[in-house]
Amino acid sequence: MTTIDDFTAQYGLVKKIDAFGYLDWLKANPDAPRKHGKVVLVTADTPLKASRGEGKTTTTIALIDALNARGIDATAVLRQPSMGITAAGSKGGASGGGKASLTHPELIDWGLTGEMAAIAAAQNLLVSFAEKAVDDGRIDTILVPRVSEVPSRSLRSIAVDYGKGDVKERVVLTPTSELMQIVCLSRSMDEISRRVAAMIAGTKDGKPVTFGEFVDLWRITGILADAVKPALTETVNGSPVYVHGGPFANVSIGIPTLVAVEMACALHDVVIVEAGYGADAGAQKWLDIASREYGAAWPSAAVVVTRASTWRDDPELAWRYPFHVQRLENFDIPTFPLVNLWDGEDDQVPSLRETAKELEFRTPIIGNLFRDGGEALAPQLDGFVEALEAAPASAQFHSRKGMDLVENVRWIANNAYGVPAERVILKDGFAESLAEARALCDGAGISLDDLAVVAVKSPATMTDNDRAPEAERTVTLKKVEVHAGAGLVHVNLTTSLTTPMPKIV
Amino acid sequence: MTTIDDFTAQYGLVKKIDAFGYLDWLKANPDAPRKHGKVVLVTADTPLKASRGEGKTTTTIALIDALNARGIDATAVLRQPSMGITAAGSKGGASGGGKASLTHPELIDWGLTGEMAAIAAAQNLLVSFAEKAVDDGRIDTILVPRVSEVPSRSLRSIAVDYGKGDVKERVVLTPTSELMQIVCLSRSMDEISRRVAAMIAGTKDGKPVTFGEFVDLWRITGILADAVKPALTETVNGSPVYVHGGPFANVSIGIPTLVAVEMACALHDVVIVEAGYGADAGAQKWLDIASREYGAAWPSAAVVVTRASTWRDDPELAWRYPFHVQRLENFDIPTFPLVNLWDGEDDQVPSLRETAKELEFRTPIIGNLFRDGGEALAPQLDGFVEALEAAPASAQFHSRKGMDLVENVRWIANNAYGVPAERVILKDGFAESLAEARALCDGAGISLDDLAVVAVKSPATMTDNDRAPEAERTVTLKKVEVHAGAGLVHVNLTTSLTTPMPKIV
Repeated sequence: MTTIDDFTAQYGLVKKIDAFGYLDWLKANPDAPRKHGKVVLVTADTPLKASRGEGKTTTTIALIDALNARGIDATAVLRQPSMGITAAGSKGGASGGGKASLTHPELIDWGLTGEMAAIAAAQNLLVSFAEKAVDDGRIDTILVPRVSEVPSRSLRSIAVDYGKGDVKERVVLTPTSELMQIVCLSRSMDEISRRVAAMIAGTKDGKPVTFGEFVDLWRITGILADAVKPALTETVNGSPVYVHGGPFANVSIGIPTLVAVEMACALHDVVIVEAGYGADAGAQKWLDIASREYGAAWPSAAVVVTRASTWRDDPELAWRYPFHVQRLENFDIPTFPLVNLWDGEDDQVPSLRETAKELEFRTPIIGNLFRDGGEALAPQLDGFVEALEAAPASAQFHSRKGMDLVENVRWIANNAYGVPAERVILKDGFAESLAEARALCDGAGISLDDLAVVAVKSPATMTDNDRAPEAERTVTLKKVEVHAGAGLVHVNLTTSLTTPMPKIV
Repeated sequence: MTTIDDFTAQYGLVKKIDAFGYLDWLKANPDAPRKHGKVVLVTADTPLKASRGEGKTTTTIALIDALNARGIDATAVLRQPSMGITAAGSKGGASGGGKASLTHPELIDWGLTGEMAAIAAAQNLLVSFAEKAVDDGRIDTILVPRVSEVPSRSLRSIAVDYGKGDVKERVVLTPTSELMQIVCLSRSMDEISRRVAAMIAGTKDGKPVTFGEFVDLWRITGILADAVKPALTETVNGSPVYVHGGPFANVSIGIPTLVAVEMACALHDVVIVEAGYGADAGAQKWLDIASREYGAAWPSAAVVVTRASTWRDDPELAWRYPFHVQRLENFDIPTFPLVNLWDGEDDQVPSLRETAKELEFRTPIIGNLFRDGGEALAPQLDGFVEALEAAPASAQFHSRKGMDLVENVRWIANNAYGVPAERVILKDGFAESLAEARALCDGAGISLDDLAVVAVKSPATMTDNDRAPEAERTVTLKKVEVHAGAGLVHVNLTTSLTTPMPKIV
């Protein structure tokens, strides 16, 4: 009998799974035994600083260990950390910590089995092909950025053919590339191939030219052959964990690959999906992009992680955490506050519970997850498990395809950041950027309004100034960038980075 | 009982071996069963074009299949092709062809398990750290180039911090980087760490600053953890083949890793080592760098591959093939001509044998290896096997450490290219480049003359003009570049590339 093992191969200390093959096989064998796991979205309060996490991965790991300890077949799907960033030491890896750890965090943190590197090579190869297309007279302007797997301040602005053409180019971090988005959103190599073909390489006399017009697509899919396979590892307590897809919900989508989540749902009863940064970033993108537009499961429950300090101690920003919890509840997603305690914070538990009660939250889950791991959580999960069992495996939601781009962003601003339409400001130059994007799409025979909106913004803020009183908070739209292959349109908001290329700190 | 299996792990369709661990274990267990394989160097005539191989890999694969068919435990150690180049399609992979093929050439050709990518990330991370050192005022000039895994014409000359500092930088292909050289030449992670520490990051007020002065070395070795493990695959006929280390004997060393060869010698009786391009490139580097200076085995026999046409049909260049064969024989290495026939060339066998006889070669091995594989060779190998059995496992050779750099290059020109000392020309600017390199070494507390010389040159020529009459052939020295970490000094000769960064063709 065919099982998942037939799609699984050992790669050193991790396994890799041909998820495309397995999901195809399931489709062809509708009577084969499979599960219909429920998705739990683990998200967080908006972090105070971009470089500081609230502990989503630690929570995710502790949570599945706790659920497995209660006899529930639970797994997690994590995103692969940006190797260059973790190797450079400017940000922790995303592999948990302490008792809530993976068995081989160093593998996950430092390049896994070359997934990110393969995507980097493929995206850079596309740029090389675009260059050749310039030489061949097919295009005159390249629109696709190069990528780097390591952060480098000076790559924020480069010129190639220096001393000859002095062509200004962009270099972005690999996980933020359109090709990573395509890998995250596609359900087959054919779909990847189609999406790469639809990527706009550049323009000729202002008209878009796609890669499909001049690149042998098998060269790109060939490079990605192993990168499209999710990795399977486990927690130190033996709970299975899948790792696939890149981070950065601030400048990209920052969600794990859809196929990894779907495969996990066919194999386990509960699948924790971790999306990037705060609920306004990764969770918003899971709901409004992955679920609404790309058919990913609507979460059956959500956990919003915070630290004891983040959500209470800064009065100006204290509105954010309850806002996130309430927003998810408004979608009928049972949403559980989870406070990830640091050392020395145990005595705060009573007051934390008091605040949660005042805010009319569900009973919060509270623990020092680094120190105690899943053990700290297991006894607190009765309500969570009950809510999860009661929730449907999927829920109704509506595509927003075809809605005018600015209307769509206004809806996001209102819904996800609490800023009403009239306080969404179009910055000077935005209209021109929008018109250019619209013309580019028209030239490529697609509609800009059919692309899913990726809000590009600082991970640490939802509005132009989160510290302003509610009635004065605004969201400014700065510019638009089309990712036609991925089916996405980036809209830069508020204090977004212009180039997602950090420096080493 | 401990065996090689204890150091071996499956990585998808290939295995990877902890060669450092195995060789350490052998050292600690001198009585453990092991072989003392003899190394056979497979090299070739100087190719007519840089992009055209004579069929070294095809020959290597056919040869080990033929030896195994004769009951001899033979393996090969191949270099990993430059993934970007093969994916871009501008050059064939290096995984043989037809009946003389590997089981999974696409894996070898397109990134294997991320080895090249890890080296790229680590070298680029060093540049990022150097950048930070500039910000911190530790250095004012970066000397280490960035690397790219894909070819890109426009990267030959770039400026970073464009519009602010406009700092000119170099980007080279990953396999040509100093870090790849370090991986090829090192026998332990400690040695890699020491060598990375000794790499000159840049200068401050003209004085060299090494990476050891400001980089946490574990960050670099962490990235390389899997990349230092040779891959094990096999031919379609089941002969084992190890793949490890990067190509490009024109602009770098272009030899497989020393540990892969040494591990193979402990496990097999005959180990075919393939070095890059012609005998004047990879073979010269194996002998004069790997063997003389880094303790690699001196070959017990050599095979010099050519095509039926290359060595005869261009009268001006016909001197090169016999020159290569004779040169290796002069080192007392039994050297076998091997003619790799193309389709339609079978009728040339008698005349090829005649020419070989006139040139007083050993009986040549001749076959259409793509079409017939090892079968075509097995019956012709009596003389080869006899010579190999008679040859010592190792031979005497002398280090040239301490010899004046220019004297050393003159010796190479005379010995490997047939150009006497008086026709070695120092180009304008060479003396300054040499003086700078010497000052840099002095500042770093090492002697330039202790570094092994890497002749950087076109793969298609040995002299300034190979078509000139012998008495008029010259070699011009153009510039010098120190790779202190690898223990190498590059000297650019004749028509060498200034930037090893091809364009897509």
